[in-house]
Amino acid sequence: MRHARVACFGEIHDAVETGGKIQLDDGRMVERSDVTWLPPIEAATIFALGLNYADHASEISFNAPEEPLVFLKGPNALVGHEGQSRRPKDATHMHYECELAVVIGKKGRNVSRSEAYNYVAGYTVANDYVIRDYLENYYRPNLAAKNRDSLTPIGPWLVDKEGVADPMQLTLRTYVNGEQTQEGSTSDMVFDIPYLIEYLSSFMTLHENDVILTGTPKGTVHVYEGDEVITEIEGIGSLKNTVIGDAEFNR
Amino acid sequence: MRHARVACFGEIHDAVETGGKIQLDDGRMVERSDVTWLPPIEAATIFALGLNYADHASEISFNAPEEPLVFLKGPNALVGHEGQSRRPKDATHMHYECELAVVIGKKGRNVSRSEAYNYVAGYTVANDYVIRDYLENYYRPNLAAKNRDSLTPIGPWLVDKEGVADPMQLTLRTYVNGEQTQEGSTSDMVFDIPYLIEYLSSFMTLHENDVILTGTPKGTVHVYEGDEVITEIEGIGSLKNTVIGDAEFNR
Repeated sequence: MRHARVACFGEIHDAVETGGKIQLDDGRMVERSDVTWLPPIEAATIFALGLNYADHASEISFNAPEEPLVFLKGPNALVGHEGQSRRPKDATHMHYECELAVVIGKKGRNVSRSEAYNYVAGYTVANDYVIRDYLENYYRPNLAAKNRDSLTPIGPWLVDKEGVADPMQLTLRTYVNGEQTQEGSTSDMVFDIPYLIEYLSSFMTLHENDVILTGTPKGTVHVYEGDEVITEIEGIGSLKNTVIGDAEFNR
Repeated sequence: MRHARVACFGEIHDAVETGGKIQLDDGRMVERSDVTWLPPIEAATIFALGLNYADHASEISFNAPEEPLVFLKGPNALVGHEGQSRRPKDATHMHYECELAVVIGKKGRNVSRSEAYNYVAGYTVANDYVIRDYLENYYRPNLAAKNRDSLTPIGPWLVDKEGVADPMQLTLRTYVNGEQTQEGSTSDMVFDIPYLIEYLSSFMTLHENDVILTGTPKGTVHVYEGDEVITEIEGIGSLKNTVIGDAEFNR
């Protein structure tokens, strides 16, 4: 089943997909044009992976890391499907990053690799934009590069894990203004989903609605104000986002 | 006024200090021995500063950063006053870090330095423990070093900002098993509180109950299983924590 969170007729609703339409949690069926899409979960802790596809690490001149390169993101960064993300006026290197987002379904600590999928609720699509300009610093703090307001579109749907045969065999694609610019497969992750859950839960208790953004493959390119960016994962969803400038963001 | 969150008689309560006693949000007065202290706020986004006192940066052989070195922490790391923090069996470098914690009181974006204190609710004490072993990596991901379960005691009280004459002129001290091991002043911060609020809010919307851990001065030393660590800030509070081992943590 596919789940969403939407704003509709003045309220926020949980919703599911039924026969191609959207059914709200009060039973009403609505059209897609009736809703504003929100991130499909109210995210608790948000983990993001750097350089988790070897081809992407090589593309930006880094070696693949020997242990997961994980950082945290704040909920301020999230926007839903058909949302807008801000490209700051002074940015020269804003890239999209199409990523499989794993949503945790229950509390877990010291979860073994073999038990890891029992802790997964489902999957959605994220676009973990980065402003690379702001990484040029000896200490490489990534907050200003990766955690700006609006820079992580996510959605549209949370797809139950039962609806995904093998999350490690999914094709990811990105389209900028209709042209395909990125293609990869989750099979190329350096650290796979069970490993990430085992690793993180070895020192941090995982909770329901924690989200793991699993990294992006090769093929990131610059985007500019006005671009329409669609990140898409086979069987999970197609997430649309528009890049806007400072003036529109701050109006 | 000083505010706490406590567990008492089977429930969680907000509480205030009244005449040296604790008054629960239902009006009852209770003794300190009746309560389990929780972190004084339900933290939203938790920011932490690295190397924000020049003497501490020098102590661990780094230059002070030219822009704030900020990372995010998850709520899994927090424990309250009189809580326990885990020293992993294989750790050789576990240090405390006494830090002034600034709690944000209202939503703000693009907050100017001159307006910054209007967005502060108050202050509390944090001990932002670090396991330095886990930082030995080219990419220096700090998640495993800084965000482990239980490694950020915080509290006991949230002190309203009206109760703090000048947060940039406070003495910080740490005591390990009764012996003073650290002393510094918030006046030595590289980036002061107004700057940090201006900086962060320039790209991230701040929200009520966001917390900024402002860094630690010189004088961090190793701690071991069984140590009692008290981090104390003049006029804000005295935060007690006990270091425990894996067996006790996992029992």
